[in-house]
Amino acid sequence: MAKAVLTPRGVDFPRWYQDVIAKAELAENGPARGSMVIRPAGYALWERMQRELDDRIKAAGAANAYFPLLIPESYLRREAEHVEGFSPELAVVTIAGGRQLEEPLVVRPTSETVIGESMARWIESYRDLPLLLNQWANVVRWELRPRLFLRTTEFLWQEGHTAHASEADARGYARRILHHVYEDVLVNVLAVPVVVGRKTVRERFAGATSTYTLEAMMGDGKALQMGTSHELGQNFARAFGIDYLDASGRRELAWTTSWGITTRLIGGLIMAHGDDLGLRVPPRLAPVQAVVLLVKEGEGVAAAAGELTAALREAGVRAWLDDRVEVPFGRRAIDAELKGYPVRVEVGPRDVAEGRAVLVRRVTGERTAVPLDSVARLVTEALETGQKALYEGALARQRERTADVASVPAAVEAAGAGWARLPWSSVGDDGEAELNAQGVTVRCLVRADGGVPVSEDEPDLVAVVGRAY
Amino acid sequence: MAKAVLTPRGVDFPRWYQDVIAKAELAENGPARGSMVIRPAGYALWERMQRELDDRIKAAGAANAYFPLLIPESYLRREAEHVEGFSPELAVVTIAGGRQLEEPLVVRPTSETVIGESMARWIESYRDLPLLLNQWANVVRWELRPRLFLRTTEFLWQEGHTAHASEADARGYARRILHHVYEDVLVNVLAVPVVVGRKTVRERFAGATSTYTLEAMMGDGKALQMGTSHELGQNFARAFGIDYLDASGRRELAWTTSWGITTRLIGGLIMAHGDDLGLRVPPRLAPVQAVVLLVKEGEGVAAAAGELTAALREAGVRAWLDDRVEVPFGRRAIDAELKGYPVRVEVGPRDVAEGRAVLVRRVTGERTAVPLDSVARLVTEALETGQKALYEGALARQRERTADVASVPAAVEAAGAGWARLPWSSVGDDGEAELNAQGVTVRCLVRADGGVPVSEDEPDLVAVVGRAY
Repeated sequence: MAKAVLTPRGVDFPRWYQDVIAKAELAENGPARGSMVIRPAGYALWERMQRELDDRIKAAGAANAYFPLLIPESYLRREAEHVEGFSPELAVVTIAGGRQLEEPLVVRPTSETVIGESMARWIESYRDLPLLLNQWANVVRWELRPRLFLRTTEFLWQEGHTAHASEADARGYARRILHHVYEDVLVNVLAVPVVVGRKTVRERFAGATSTYTLEAMMGDGKALQMGTSHELGQNFARAFGIDYLDASGRRELAWTTSWGITTRLIGGLIMAHGDDLGLRVPPRLAPVQAVVLLVKEGEGVAAAAGELTAALREAGVRAWLDDRVEVPFGRRAIDAELKGYPVRVEVGPRDVAEGRAVLVRRVTGERTAVPLDSVARLVTEALETGQKALYEGALARQRERTADVASVPAAVEAAGAGWARLPWSSVGDDGEAELNAQGVTVRCLVRADGGVPVSEDEPDLVAVVGRAY
Repeated sequence: MAKAVLTPRGVDFPRWYQDVIAKAELAENGPARGSMVIRPAGYALWERMQRELDDRIKAAGAANAYFPLLIPESYLRREAEHVEGFSPELAVVTIAGGRQLEEPLVVRPTSETVIGESMARWIESYRDLPLLLNQWANVVRWELRPRLFLRTTEFLWQEGHTAHASEADARGYARRILHHVYEDVLVNVLAVPVVVGRKTVRERFAGATSTYTLEAMMGDGKALQMGTSHELGQNFARAFGIDYLDASGRRELAWTTSWGITTRLIGGLIMAHGDDLGLRVPPRLAPVQAVVLLVKEGEGVAAAAGELTAALREAGVRAWLDDRVEVPFGRRAIDAELKGYPVRVEVGPRDVAEGRAVLVRRVTGERTAVPLDSVARLVTEALETGQKALYEGALARQRERTADVASVPAAVEAAGAGWARLPWSSVGDDGEAELNAQGVTVRCLVRADGGVPVSEDEPDLVAVVGRAY
């Protein structure tokens, strides 16, 4: 119905992505290099993601806390691999309160070290374990090639940090978060299908012994890492002295985990579901699930639109009344599509005269005239079917664009259009280097039955490879 | 019942404050000077405050957004008074990504400037006004004499920033936030009585034309500024070019406001309500409203305690079951008092045999044996009376310790024990300087009827003065 206001995805996907973010007013570049302003429409998505994640994190027994932004440089040096992983990305405060600092302070790139130091003080005996902490915070990692939401110098995230009495307990918890928090929210709220697996040694987090990941396919066939959960073994515990007295009074090192999801998720949501008309927000996530669009003024129209909005809210729908009649109807309809509201309910003078409204479903574009008194019920149904359709559409794309191949060269070729699956035994260290040289990475290793391996040495593992953001 | 684990307030109030924070595990010092770790029990209070404030901020029409942490130094220089107010407190990033930065980046002490710059781009015409933004964020202001929650180098807050088409609209909104968000939460959720008034020119925010404040009296008679709401006139609009086309097509400068509440509120809560046994958390705020304390194991005790907890949750009470029987009962009872849970329900073998539980109210210390099947109802009642009693206790103290006086010397004397009220006309600029020389400040100006003045030149204003944190 509308003339294109976005670059079509098929023409230039990265340009389309930028266009959607600008036109849907989700975010824009901040004043300093690589920084980002998250505008209200973008931040509302993040708030809804936070709520869904936070509820599940708390249900998994973790408590929120807050640790300092500025960390003494010496803290980062305690864990060798960790500092090596982060040092080129650090922002450093050298002046404060009008003076040169004796010890520079690093703006946290993650809070592993400062939380590790607190854990060491808080944990005395096995009775204090497991210690399950989470933090919602901003972190800074200098980016040379910033891209809104996907790679920004500052981003928002939650970072969980836990300490356990045994490796099995730590592993169980890292995997519980992976499946019962992250996978659940991604699949059931964001409607984004994911492949859940294990990172190779080359791809895992600096200092971790296992990194688990959730990988989603974007609209252009590339992969985006949506979240990670790490087992850190006893590496951090050793570096920070996180130990405890066991039941027999012996001092033992704890086993720790960490796990995080960031504002990059918003970028993933845009690229997994967006189409040439704009964003498509999954109904369960959507801050606005239905917009009631008052077409133009006329007898009883404002009253009918107000009543519809009230009826929708009564039915538990997050509804917003757009009665800005001074803005042309067509522009507002395009705007509603751009912003990806799952359902649009149009009410104008003719509709009211005929006792109906027009219901437009964002996912399918389907338009139907429906009686005014059945709008709330039909919108509720449309939200459910819309949620399902988005998930199924994304899953179908992932399946269509994943090729089973047998060799590294074939995998590189398949990665031009999407993902490839091939036996990990046919890749190995050398094969991985060969893939990387072509800009392709092993996104994760999975078992043949889709399960998540506990080691890259398990037999019959499948490597899922592709190009990635 | 318990031996004192805290320094009594009467002996050393600041020491008592530190003791409560440590023993109730609310917070501790972070590694860098003046930084703070907010532990789970402290952060849970903040999360509850956030939720109450955020709901009301959204009801007032403002939307949350997120602006960058790191701000180019040049931004702060645009508004002369503003930079002068903040420059000695700034933390500055000079190195990032392994290189010296060409322009240093300031860690935001507030986001006025970066938000002002965005507003200038987002606002075109009167149709874009009012623009009502809020941000939940961390800010950094270098502190020479840090004190947990009250003055820390980094703190958490919300900062609202709005732009309006007229001075009247800006003023109305700054005052709406003051009363309908801040005063409402302080009085009705935190149970903290406040005097709401206007800051003198000397005390107001750098760059503001009016600063409104909410002042609460702490347990030692000193004042704590709990929140502020500012009218910025056209100062920031002029510095950042926040202008709009009015209905007749003329370009006009906008009128802006800003308003904030910080984690200092947690310090205020501790000092307004705490007693010699520890924290007393107002029931409406409390993350844990009732703790069910399983005294020791015995026939049917675990089952009864579990059922009580379930019944309380069923009744809408935030209940927690403390069944850590390996920890002595007395220690857990003291701990419950320290942490200020509004109600404690004790259940042991003898209680279960007699079909009862012991209900202990934190505010009054009153202990009553009650039938098991009426626990939920009685706890609900105790939460309501506890909320009221805390407010009334704090209000009674404020009234008792506020003296009406007629001269500056008399005000200084009264400020030794609490607050003084005296005619603003008998203070003036010279009197204010005289007060300040004695460590006493004008907390705010109020009208004789308690209303909030729009100018310090109104006749018959009353100055509320005292020592302050």
